[in-house]
Amino acid sequence: MQGVMAWRLMRRKAFSTISKAFKSFSGYPTTRSPSLLELDLPDNWTPNPTTATTTAIPHFQNHASRQTAALIDGRLMAEEIRSGIASEIKRMRDATGKVPGLAVILVGNRKDSQTYVRNKIKACEEVGITSLMAELPDKCGEDEVLDAVLSFNENPSVHGILVQLPLPQHLDEEKILNAVSLEKDVDGFHPINMGNLAMRGREPLFVPCTPRGCIELLLRSGVQIMGKKAVVIGRSNIVGLPTSLLLQRHHATVTVIHAFTKNAEQITQEADIVVSAVGVPNLVRGFWLKPGAVVIDVGTSPVEDPGSEYGYRLTGDVCYEEAVKVVSAITPVPGGVGPMTIAMLLCNTVDSAKRAFGFS
Amino acid sequence: MQGVMAWRLMRRKAFSTISKAFKSFSGYPTTRSPSLLELDLPDNWTPNPTTATTTAIPHFQNHASRQTAALIDGRLMAEEIRSGIASEIKRMRDATGKVPGLAVILVGNRKDSQTYVRNKIKACEEVGITSLMAELPDKCGEDEVLDAVLSFNENPSVHGILVQLPLPQHLDEEKILNAVSLEKDVDGFHPINMGNLAMRGREPLFVPCTPRGCIELLLRSGVQIMGKKAVVIGRSNIVGLPTSLLLQRHHATVTVIHAFTKNAEQITQEADIVVSAVGVPNLVRGFWLKPGAVVIDVGTSPVEDPGSEYGYRLTGDVCYEEAVKVVSAITPVPGGVGPMTIAMLLCNTVDSAKRAFGFS
Repeated sequence: MQGVMAWRLMRRKAFSTISKAFKSFSGYPTTRSPSLLELDLPDNWTPNPTTATTTAIPHFQNHASRQTAALIDGRLMAEEIRSGIASEIKRMRDATGKVPGLAVILVGNRKDSQTYVRNKIKACEEVGITSLMAELPDKCGEDEVLDAVLSFNENPSVHGILVQLPLPQHLDEEKILNAVSLEKDVDGFHPINMGNLAMRGREPLFVPCTPRGCIELLLRSGVQIMGKKAVVIGRSNIVGLPTSLLLQRHHATVTVIHAFTKNAEQITQEADIVVSAVGVPNLVRGFWLKPGAVVIDVGTSPVEDPGSEYGYRLTGDVCYEEAVKVVSAITPVPGGVGPMTIAMLLCNTVDSAKRAFGFS
Repeated sequence: MQGVMAWRLMRRKAFSTISKAFKSFSGYPTTRSPSLLELDLPDNWTPNPTTATTTAIPHFQNHASRQTAALIDGRLMAEEIRSGIASEIKRMRDATGKVPGLAVILVGNRKDSQTYVRNKIKACEEVGITSLMAELPDKCGEDEVLDAVLSFNENPSVHGILVQLPLPQHLDEEKILNAVSLEKDVDGFHPINMGNLAMRGREPLFVPCTPRGCIELLLRSGVQIMGKKAVVIGRSNIVGLPTSLLLQRHHATVTVIHAFTKNAEQITQEADIVVSAVGVPNLVRGFWLKPGAVVIDVGTSPVEDPGSEYGYRLTGDVCYEEAVKVVSAITPVPGGVGPMTIAMLLCNTVDSAKRAFGFS
């Protein structure tokens, strides 16, 4: 539990910081006063490094013989979806002579971003989506990125525009993402899409890919969401927030847990559905989970592992070895949410092309 | 508990309806498939009429002698805020020669809407905000309402535009609200404002008035929100949703309860802060509440009361007579959230004028 303890320390530190905001409150409020919207404190989950190693956690060897939980196979479901998309695109090409196009903007030379982008483009090619790419140097100016966005906005053969995040520090992410045409915002990060996802009776043009993937994993596993208690751990704009909004649209009773939550274990213990998207290896231990719960593990962190081929292995937020003995179903890491995220990007791009072509 | 029981019945009924949506799920998903975004089922909280009477609830006579909870006096706080606004506007007029302007669009002749609008205009006059009004007949066309919105959008003396809801059935509320200039959306109902309220690191131009009022009531009562368990009962676009987003921005751990929630009482029992915005008189009974909790009651429903002057009295979602014996602080109905809502509308209008004038 060292990790969680360390994370509590972080929280207490943040408490003393924030208390100033309350002290400073006085007089007549203005919309922009921090006391109304509160300080946007970082959720510092970074645990004591020791939990990130395998010392506290039994190294995952041969789960098949030990696990009782059903495996939610994201690779298999993503494969089914991709083959469905491929035939949709064939049908589209046969009927209209056109295919969907996805444009990717990659700024800088982060290895992980390059890998993600490569995988997305490969996935596009496999299903018949044309992919365009704009690679910009790490030091490029904001106007260069905006120009790339605007030219893709105007390009009729582009139906989805993806700005690979994170962007270099000197660029204004909000400004750049807001410049993406609403009709091509296949990442669903535009505030209008987010607002329409949040508001009842509204429909966003696009639902962010990873949250959409989480819901598809649940639906395709036959998990009923309505009336269930759902806990989302993490509140990022990209995963935690939209996932909580989607689960609520499915009429779950949703609680969002973040780094300032007290007794996160106890709250999680009551959940029928747990979605964790924090990026802290093994933060969620077996005793956090209710017997029979369903777990979607979005976390994917590299953890040192001298035993494995590359010297590290990808690890989720949830301690898999402990969870499989408690829950009824769980996604593995890797092979759970990851493949679904790319599949949903393809879905969003095809949906966008269908709208553009008036094809259904 | 007849009311709550009846509400459960409603929920079960809805369950059977929605299960169809799951059965219909198959093949490759599209963004608009109901299985992804789910059906937008109404939260039917309507209880058995008998709870709306005073038979189940001891009639509130003389709480002063019985209550142990502190009263959160919305009238007093709103009065303080309004006098602060009045002096802000004087300062603005002295410096710029201009004052803020609020335009109200009222369609139809609903008595309650007319009353609300009258109160808002009266409050504007008291603090020195110029008010304009467009009254349209119940049967007017959508274009007439849109024309009114657009002319106010272009009018430089108007800094806030308020479309009084609900609109007559034949009008497209979404289309009309989205036509309001983002810079004048003092109700904060535009999806961009909602999206920016939901997303971390973003700031909406306006926060919806009632949710803003709820947070101000808590802050001005010295209630610490960060790290607290908060339960929001009701998930309307106007109150429940934005209030839950604001509480989360204040780093509370928020659970949203709706008509499909199971064991709403138990979940509410764990909350340090309860905000109820359902409109079902006395839905939240004393035993729903944790000793020492803080309650913000947004519900304001007329309940028959032969004993009172007009034959009815305004009643909240929370059974006040029971709650005051359990919680540490509570807003009365009337005299709690209501006055704050109007005060926040004035704040939003002044904030908007300050931005327009570049005055701070």
